[in-house]
This record gives sequence, C-alpha cells and structure tokens, in this order.
Amino acid sequence: MSVIVSGGAGFIGVNLVRQLLNLNKKVIVFDNLTNSSISHINEFISNDNFTFVNLDISNFIDYDHAVKDLCNDVESIWHLAANSDIQSGISDLDIDFRDTFMTTLNTLKIMKKYSISTLSFASSSAIYGDQGTNLITEDMGPLLPISNYGAMKLSSEAMICSACESFLEKAYIYRFPNVVGVPATHGVILDLVRKIKKNPSLLHVLGNGTQEKPYLHVHDLIDAMFFVQNIKLKRLNIFNIASNSLPIKVSRIAEEILQKLAPNAKIKYEKKDRGWQGDIPKVNFSCEKIYSLGWRPRLNSSEAVSLAIDQVIQQEF
Amino acid sequence: MSVIVSGGAGFIGVNLVRQLLNLNKKVIVFDNLTNSSISHINEFISNDNFTFVNLDISNFIDYDHAVKDLCNDVESIWHLAANSDIQSGISDLDIDFRDTFMTTLNTLKIMKKYSISTLSFASSSAIYGDQGTNLITEDMGPLLPISNYGAMKLSSEAMICSACESFLEKAYIYRFPNVVGVPATHGVILDLVRKIKKNPSLLHVLGNGTQEKPYLHVHDLIDAMFFVQNIKLKRLNIFNIASNSLPIKVSRIAEEILQKLAPNAKIKYEKKDRGWQGDIPKVNFSCEKIYSLGWRPRLNSSEAVSLAIDQVIQQEF
Repeated sequence: MSVIVSGGAGFIGVNLVRQLLNLNKKVIVFDNLTNSSISHINEFISNDNFTFVNLDISNFIDYDHAVKDLCNDVESIWHLAANSDIQSGISDLDIDFRDTFMTTLNTLKIMKKYSISTLSFASSSAIYGDQGTNLITEDMGPLLPISNYGAMKLSSEAMICSACESFLEKAYIYRFPNVVGVPATHGVILDLVRKIKKNPSLLHVLGNGTQEKPYLHVHDLIDAMFFVQNIKLKRLNIFNIASNSLPIKVSRIAEEILQKLAPNAKIKYEKKDRGWQGDIPKVNFSCEKIYSLGWRPRLNSSEAVSLAIDQVIQQEF
Repeated sequence: MSVIVSGGAGFIGVNLVRQLLNLNKKVIVFDNLTNSSISHINEFISNDNFTFVNLDISNFIDYDHAVKDLCNDVESIWHLAANSDIQSGISDLDIDFRDTFMTTLNTLKIMKKYSISTLSFASSSAIYGDQGTNLITEDMGPLLPISNYGAMKLSSEAMICSACESFLEKAYIYRFPNVVGVPATHGVILDLVRKIKKNPSLLHVLGNGTQEKPYLHVHDLIDAMFFVQNIKLKRLNIFNIASNSLPIKVSRIAEEILQKLAPNAKIKYEKKDRGWQGDIPKVNFSCEKIYSLGWRPRLNSSEAVSLAIDQVIQQEF
C-alpha cells in the first residue's frame, strides 16, 4: 500500500514525507515545484520507497495519467498542494482558483475514480476570516474569508464535506495558522531574514509590528496530524492545530532576528495594522479539541519562533 | 444604467426580471436554458428594456465577449445562474463545479474587469448542511454542506466575501430554503403533480413523507430581496429569507395535491427519512435578521404551498 503526497516538495510536505518514510510507507510525491524546490527532496531520492513526479495536479488529465501509471494500491492521499503566496492571490483570482481549489477538486475526483479511502487535507486558519478577538473554535461561524486563499481553502473543505456524504470513506481536515521551520519557502521569518541579509542596517517590517499570532513548529504540526490519525474517529474529522500558548507579536520576531544577525540595525514599521491585504492581525485560536484528546506541542509559540529563526538563518546564510 | 440577470430564464430569474422591468430597469438576461426555458421569457420579448442572450456564463471568454458587446454602464449583477438539480450533482462532481461554482467565479471576474459595483447572489440554505433541530442563523457554524450543490454555493459565498475585501463594492447574499411558485422547473410540488398526471391512481413520494421544511412563495422572495436592497447596509450583507411560520411536511403536500387532483389515489411512501442523498429532512430556519428590519412574507409556509400547488396544476394541465 502506498501514500500520495501532493505538494510533497513544499515546506510542510517535505517534513511529512520524511516522517512517512520513517514509518516505512511507500510515498509518491506530486509537486509542480512552484513555491517549492527539487533541492528539498534530495535527501529522499536514494530511498526505494520514494517516488517523485513533477506534476501540476490542477490539470486532471495529467493527474489521472500519473495515478494510472504509477500508483497501485494507494491507501491514502495527503493533499498539501496549494498556492502558498496569499498576497499574489489577492490581485489575481485565478491563482488560488487553480492552485488551491482545482487541486482539491481533482484530488477528490481521483479518490472517487480509484477508490482511495482516506484523505488528509492541509487547510488553514484563513477559512475563519478576521474574527477579531473571538475565540476561534472548529464549530464557529460565520466563516467570512478575507483572501482568495482563505476562500479557496474553505471551498475545498466544503467539497470534502460533501464527498464524505457519498464516496469518501475518511477525511481529516487540519486547520492551522502560522507554521514555522525549514525548508522555509515563505512567511514572516524568511522575509525578515532575507531583508536583513540584503540590508544589514535597516529592517523594513510589513505592518506596524503589533500583529499577534500563535506559531507552531512544523515538527509539532506533523506530530499532531499523525496523533489524530491514530485515534479512531468519525468519517469527517476537523481539527484546529496550534499551540494554546501566548501569541507572538511581529515586532518580537523582528527584534529577535536583529539580535541574532544585526544588533545595531534599525527597524522601520509601517503605519497599518496588518502586513498586507488579506493578512489577519490578531488570531485567538482555540486548540481545545485536539488538546482534549491529549495532544500537546513540544514547543510553545515563543520556542517555535526561536528555533525557526535559527533554522532559517542557517538555511539562508 | 442596466442590470445583468444571470439565470434570468429560470424559476426565480423570471420573477425577478418581471419586477426589474416593472421598476423600469434595463435588463440583460444571460441564460444557457438548462433547467429553464425560452417560453418563460416570452412575456418580456416585446419590452424594449429587455435583452436576452443564450449564453453559458461558466465559459469566461463567452461571458466577457457578451458583456463587452452588449453592456454599457452596468450598475449591478443579479447572479442566479446555477445547477438547480441537486441530485444530479451528487453523482457527478463536475456539474455543480461548472454550473454553480464557475458561474460565480466568472461573475466576479466580470465585475472586477468592468468595475460593476453591486452583486446580488442567490445562495441557499444548503450551505448550512444538515443542522438537525439547531436554529439556523446567518452567523452559525460549523458549515458542513452534504451536497455538491451546497458545497459550491458555500464556495461561491466565500469568493464573494473575499472579493468584498478588494474590488467588490457591495454584495447581497440571500440564503433561502424551498421556494415555490411558477414557472416551476423542479421541486417537490412539480414532481408530485407530474407523477399524479402520469398515474392518477398511485402517488409515489420520495422519502417517508416526514421531511419538514419552511416554504416561501417566489413573490415573497423577490419582495424580500428588494426590501433588503432599499435599506442602507454594509459592504457585505447576508440574509436568510423564509417564513418563520410552521414548516410543512411532505405528506401534507402530497395529500393536498391528491385532494385537488385525484382524491381516490393512494400514496406510497419510502422507508428512508429523506427524499434523496443530499436532501435535508428537517430545517429549523431563522429569519430573525430580516424580520428585525421589518420585513414579513405575505404568505406563510402553508399558504405558499397551497397557492403554488394551484399554480403548478395550472402550468401542467
């Protein structure tokens, strides 16, 4: 039995594939290498259980051919392929339509056609929209996404819900806010580290620095997803995943990066309360559902950010 | 200034177009005549303010060409085009993807390209999924649609929410459960009237007859939508529309149809509690939000059903 990982050369995908291979799974990765890199998967190439296909799964015919040719006895799909550049999707509706929505629709069509039983889907806290200080639980409403990325993740979830009423045997939907670690491909830490590398005297931060969010290390995310799947659950399972620890301000991340890389540099903030259109400045994210099952992250938000800063510095320098 | 109505030859569309023309609006209807009919719009053909184009707006290039050629100074779009056969969309994911989702995506792309300010969208109670006896308010969660139709309506709403954060100036989202009246193209009343016409001695009802829902007459739906638009509201406005009156059982509808058409016929019910996969047997729908603004339907569920039965009998016999 083998496992398909779409987006398996991306940030979260690489960490997931490593764990699946550690568990002696046969892993087939489909990735179009947009917002990801072939270098990320070099470490797996010599593993006989690993297959990589450079493929854009937003094209159903290509996806179908690849599955027909390569995949026998697929037990599950981890669907991680998506646009990861939320800002680019604000100006062009077609980006998240193609990379976030169509990839999910095609995943479901493949699962139906080849009777693949189990779907694990990387969703996002973006489906909740801007809830202000409201506590964000899995069952809350209304769901009013403020980015096309969030809209297409919510659309993907809606299709998965509906599929669970007909052909899909088991689905796990994981909603997470900022995940940090390596290989970093996007996000605030990479952005700031690259800026200070380019100009070691001045760090320009997007937004006024007061944006405050929980951060989860990618190792804890992988751990949480496997934790959930080892428990006997329902046909459709939706979980927020994050740390219930204190959230971290962007200004704190900027200061820590400067302390480690350029202690004498100045920081320049913007006046607006968010980094970019579609950004959500404060997130009050509840993880009570997964905590109640006994899971805990090894690192709180502060520890996750500190480790990730070290890792991203090592990646970039 | 003119108004585009997509799906304007369908059941709700025809009633909306009649009202828009009564208000002396210039109306351009785009409809692909699937689940609708050219005969529905015969009454408008001689009106100089009315233009009809046989067009499938799920094709963006066609939609774009038509708008470029025909539409100057469009002030708003009423986007009603969608698949209306929920059951067909259960077995084939592509139907609601094309007819319910793509029509909305293309509507938004057209509005962005031609700077059209106001969108009115016919959504559905199907976005709420099966909430059992929970009171269905606009802000409730979770939203777990059980049909592809519901999933694609929720996806459409999500895209509209996101568009309101960037280019879309004003959006009205109307969520309604069963709407009845003429020209009937689908729904329980048309189904039962056609069955008894075919076999006047036995009426086969889908489900066990205990399915219980609110019904709204299409005239009241049109009235509610215009009522909301005449009040100064926010950029994004979401309203449940129905009657807060007692819901009606399917068995009651079947009996009333028999009483009017074939008093001696027998009724045969199925054992299952819903008519078909994706059907929601009980709906506890709250209209407090629109009621609090002062709107009331002229007909309660029972009166709406009775009038619609008479109208559908007249349509079919």
